[in-house]
Amino acid sequence: MSEIETTTHLTPRFDANGLIAAVAQDAATGEVLMLAWMNQQALDATLRTGFATYWSRSRNKLWKKGEESGHVQRVIEARMDCDQDAVLLRVEQTGAACHTGQRSCFYRRIGANGALTTETE
Amino acid sequence: MSEIETTTHLTPRFDANGLIAAVAQDAATGEVLMLAWMNQQALDATLRTGFATYWSRSRNKLWKKGEESGHVQRVIEARMDCDQDAVLLRVEQTGAACHTGQRSCFYRRIGANGALTTETE
Repeated sequence: MSEIETTTHLTPRFDANGLIAAVAQDAATGEVLMLAWMNQQALDATLRTGFATYWSRSRNKLWKKGEESGHVQRVIEARMDCDQDAVLLRVEQTGAACHTGQRSCFYRRIGANGALTTETE
Repeated sequence: MSEIETTTHLTPRFDANGLIAAVAQDAATGEVLMLAWMNQQALDATLRTGFATYWSRSRNKLWKKGEESGHVQRVIEARMDCDQDAVLLRVEQTGAACHTGQRSCFYRRIGANGALTTETE
């Protein structure tokens, strides 16, 4: 195994845009809620405050999840992946994770024919 | 809600590199196994074959997960997110998802002090 895979030192490998992917998962149910992006500042803020903070690529700004909606994500546990370019946040989700009002952003199933169907579970 | 959020038509929004993020989750346990990338070809192959196929950014080639290790991922369900730039695969994982031998790539917890500790659960 390589150094990046075994080190105990947090050394995120940000991409050309200075970002890593972040997956938020409901800590209680295991449901995958959303995928978003973090730069160094967002990762620092998340770890420091204990609330998920992302980098909004569309608005090009730091974005504390729920800052407007109140739908915050309290971080129960944060994990780094093997090559340190993705973070998993196990969170306590207040309200809906998705801005559409769905609990998870992954509310559409991809059918065999490529058609999307909305699942409510 | 916008068209991209409500459409039943699969219209992935690939990034500048032609990729979307893909999260693989153990369908039985809910464990998040890994995060990888898909281009159109990888997404098509995944949906057509029922086995997770990614685009390897390091090797710059199509990569059927487990093609060398045998650690394939049979897709139980595929889901698209609200803005169609991330896919969630709920899979039946053979063996370890991570090339390090860990079941999940997210085997290190980020401590309050930023130190990484390996969790085996």
